[in-house]
Amino acid sequence: MIGRLNHVAIAVPDLKAASAQYRDTLGAKVGAPQDEPDHGVTVVFIELPNTKIELLYPLGEASPIRGFLEKNPSGGIHHICYEVDDIIAARDHLKAAGARVLGDGEPKIGAHGKPVLFLHPKDFNGSLIELEQV
Amino acid sequence: MIGRLNHVAIAVPDLKAASAQYRDTLGAKVGAPQDEPDHGVTVVFIELPNTKIELLYPLGEASPIRGFLEKNPSGGIHHICYEVDDIIAARDHLKAAGARVLGDGEPKIGAHGKPVLFLHPKDFNGSLIELEQV
Repeated sequence: MIGRLNHVAIAVPDLKAASAQYRDTLGAKVGAPQDEPDHGVTVVFIELPNTKIELLYPLGEASPIRGFLEKNPSGGIHHICYEVDDIIAARDHLKAAGARVLGDGEPKIGAHGKPVLFLHPKDFNGSLIELEQV
Repeated sequence: MIGRLNHVAIAVPDLKAASAQYRDTLGAKVGAPQDEPDHGVTVVFIELPNTKIELLYPLGEASPIRGFLEKNPSGGIHHICYEVDDIIAARDHLKAAGARVLGDGEPKIGAHGKPVLFLHPKDFNGSLIELEQV
């Protein structure tokens, strides 16, 4: 069911410094910051040859990244995103297998303009998984 | 400098259950467990079309994964691995930029039979980074 790893998301306490580190020290291809108000984040995408790294920084008071950075002040790996062909079929299959979908269970439009869902980390080895329909 | 994302490693409290979940519920291609005594882990590789997920389970009393699972009993995303062409050149470049290399600073042979190094998470947004020479 799952396809490519679309991206790994890393929450960072300083988006400018993290972008500069990936560009200058790690020598990667780093994009410009994009605000995603629906998700409460500002994101910077780093393009690797086979996938992307998504740097996440809180946007707005209700940002879901704010609590994560309070617990992890240096930042940390926040989630991984797997691609699926049909997000509704994937959701229904996972729910039937006992997995919990976060929020109201309906897909939202993600940072790439595609439908996304998040799965409960406790049901997946403590790792937050995003599914993105491609 | 960094190339492909070689893998994302997830520490899991039950290797059999996590393997079965990725194979049966998430529908991915899951390999057989391999013991890596030099690294204190048993690993299962999950092949995605563009990269791999590495499930990690402690092997031996001194396993570096044991403490991680004590802090995170459900498991969690443990590290990400970037490929480099020349691990010694990469290490020296990163050290010159002020980054710390874990252990004695010399590459070890990793799960794929290639030289690997780990970088200090505090120097990279709280994320543990493995470099693998390919």
